[in-house]
Amino acid sequence: MKSHQVTIKDIARELGVSPSTVSRALKDHPDISPATRHQVKELVEKLKYKPNAVALSLRSRRSYIIAVVVPEIVHYFFSSVISGIEDVAINAGYNVMIFQSNEKYEREVHIAQLLASNQVDGVLVSISKTTKNFSHLRELINEGLPLVFFDRACEEIEADKVVVDDFVGAFNAVEHLIKTGCRRIAHFGAPQHLQIGYQRKRGYISALEKHRIEPDEALMVKCDTHDEALKLTPEIMRLDNPPDAIFAVNDLTATGALKALKQMRFRIPEDVSIIGFTNGMVATVTDPEMSSVDQHASDLGKKAMEMLLNRIDAPELNHPAITETISTELVLRGTTRPLPLS
Amino acid sequence: MKSHQVTIKDIARELGVSPSTVSRALKDHPDISPATRHQVKELVEKLKYKPNAVALSLRSRRSYIIAVVVPEIVHYFFSSVISGIEDVAINAGYNVMIFQSNEKYEREVHIAQLLASNQVDGVLVSISKTTKNFSHLRELINEGLPLVFFDRACEEIEADKVVVDDFVGAFNAVEHLIKTGCRRIAHFGAPQHLQIGYQRKRGYISALEKHRIEPDEALMVKCDTHDEALKLTPEIMRLDNPPDAIFAVNDLTATGALKALKQMRFRIPEDVSIIGFTNGMVATVTDPEMSSVDQHASDLGKKAMEMLLNRIDAPELNHPAITETISTELVLRGTTRPLPLS
Repeated sequence: MKSHQVTIKDIARELGVSPSTVSRALKDHPDISPATRHQVKELVEKLKYKPNAVALSLRSRRSYIIAVVVPEIVHYFFSSVISGIEDVAINAGYNVMIFQSNEKYEREVHIAQLLASNQVDGVLVSISKTTKNFSHLRELINEGLPLVFFDRACEEIEADKVVVDDFVGAFNAVEHLIKTGCRRIAHFGAPQHLQIGYQRKRGYISALEKHRIEPDEALMVKCDTHDEALKLTPEIMRLDNPPDAIFAVNDLTATGALKALKQMRFRIPEDVSIIGFTNGMVATVTDPEMSSVDQHASDLGKKAMEMLLNRIDAPELNHPAITETISTELVLRGTTRPLPLS
Repeated sequence: MKSHQVTIKDIARELGVSPSTVSRALKDHPDISPATRHQVKELVEKLKYKPNAVALSLRSRRSYIIAVVVPEIVHYFFSSVISGIEDVAINAGYNVMIFQSNEKYEREVHIAQLLASNQVDGVLVSISKTTKNFSHLRELINEGLPLVFFDRACEEIEADKVVVDDFVGAFNAVEHLIKTGCRRIAHFGAPQHLQIGYQRKRGYISALEKHRIEPDEALMVKCDTHDEALKLTPEIMRLDNPPDAIFAVNDLTATGALKALKQMRFRIPEDVSIIGFTNGMVATVTDPEMSSVDQHASDLGKKAMEMLLNRIDAPELNHPAITETISTELVLRGTTRPLPLS
C-alpha cells in the first residue's frame, strides 16, 4: 500500500495559510514574508515533502509543456480546438499534451491529480458532462498552476474562460429558419444542466419569441445523438401539427434527423428544413449538405492558448479573470431554403 | 542561451558502452556488473548529469503514465485507436497522455525528446507521413523506454508492432466488387512510400490479377483526400473506357467521389460502385451509406497497449520483437450492389 503523500494542502492546513501562499513561499515569491517562507520551508523539511519538491524545482524552471484536458477527441469540435491551441503553443515554443476525460468525472479528477504533481506550465480545461464538483480544478489553481477554461467552463471558479456564443448562434439559426418561412420549428437539444444545452435552447426560444411564435413544449425534445434522432424524428413528424424545421444541438443529431426524414420521403428543405451546430466534417458529406452553425473552434483554441500564455508569462500581474466570447457563424447549405426576395 | 544538457548518450559514448547499459547501470540492474555500475555513476557525478537523474529517479518508481504519439487526432481512425488504448490502460491503472505530430517530422522529434527526459513508463507510436529518419525513436528504445508501434510502423526498428492487414482488407474489397460484376475498378490511393498506400494498392492489384483482370494504370490515381476526389473523379469518368467502381484508400476520399459522381448524375451503385476504407462516422451519413473496410481500430489500440504492458511489466524477459496483425472486415452498405444469386 502506498503511504499518504504530503501535499501543499497539508502544509497549508498545518500552518493556517492558503495553499497558494505555501506554493509561492517555496518559490521565494517576494509577496511572501521571509518569516512565512522560513516557516513553510521548515515544515516542508519536517514532513518530508519530497515528491512535490521535485515537481516544484522543475516547475520553477519552466517545462514548456502545457496540458489540455478534453471530454472526447473523437468530436470534430474538440480536435479542431486542439489544432488552434497547438498552432499558438508551438509558435511560442510549447509542447502540448492531451488528456481525455471521456466525459467521466473520476477520470477528470485523476488527470488533475497527475497534473498537480507534474511539471506542466499551464492547463487548458473543458469540463466533462458528468462533473458537478470542481475541487480538483480549484486545487490546481490553488497550487499556482495557470488554468484557462474553454468551451465548457465552470461558473463557480474564478479563472480565465473562452466560450462560444451559443445563445446568439442558436438565435441566428432559428431566426434564419423563421425568415425562410418556417413556423413550426422543433429543437433537438442537449441536457439542460450543460451550458451548451441550456444556452442553445434559450437562443431558440428567444428567436421564436422575438417573432411572436409561441414556443411549443411538444417540439422541444431531449435528443443529442445520431441514433436518438433516428428514433425520435419519426415520432415528432407524426404529431397532429408536425414541424416544418428542426434546429439540432449538434451536426450528428442533425444528420440523424436528415436520414430519418428522407426515409419518410420528406423533401429537404422543401418540406422540412434542418440546421445543425458545429459545422464539422459530416456537414459536407450529407445530401443535401447540412446548414450548420460554425463555432470557430480553431479560433477558440488559439484564444485560450493566448490567455494561458499571458498568465504564464506575467503571473505577477495577477489581473482579474477574463471571459472571452467567440462568435459563431451560420453556414448555409442545402438543408435550408433560400430567403424570400424582399 | 541554454548550455548543453548531458544525456545518457554522452555518458555511453564517453565510456564506450551502449546507452541502455548506462540506463540499466543507473537503475542497479543485476545484468550490469558492479564495476560498470560504479564507472557509470562516477562519470554521471562528474558530468553533473542532474536533470535526467531526476527523471530516472522518477522512472524507476513507475509513473503509471504512458504516452501516445499520433499523426492527427482529427481522424476517426486514430481517435478510435486511442479509445482502445485507454480502455486497457485505465483498467491497468495507467494514465494516457496524447501527443500529435501533425504529420510533421520535426514535431515528432520534439515530442520524442520530451519523452526521453520525462517520466513515462512506455510509448505507443504511429509515425508521421513525413518521417523518414528514425533515430529519435531508436534513442528512446536505447534509453530503455518500452515502445510499441501501431498502424504506421517503422520497418527498420526492432520493436513490437501492431498493424492492420491492409493488403487483405483491400483484396477483399476489390474481390467483392468483382463478384458483384464490376470489371473496370479504379483505385484512389495514397502515396506509395506509406505502407498503407503501398499495401492497399497491392491488395487491389492482386485481387484483379486473381480474377484475370488486367490492372490498368489509367485507373490508378494518387488521390487521398475529399477535395482531390471532387476534382479527379470527373476526370476519370471522362475516360473513353470509364470505371464502373472506385476503391478508395479512405472514407473521405470515397465520400468525395460519391459526391462528384452524384453531381454528374451517375446512379450509385447501379452505374458506379464505391468502397471506402476506415468505416468511420462519415460512412453512415452519406446517401447512400458507404460500404467500407473496417479496421477494428479500437481492437488495434487494445492490442498495442497490452503489448506495451507486457514489456513494462516484465522487462527482464526481453523477448524478441513481435508483430501482431489486426484483421479487417468489409462492411457492406448502399454504395455496392448485391452479390448475384448463385
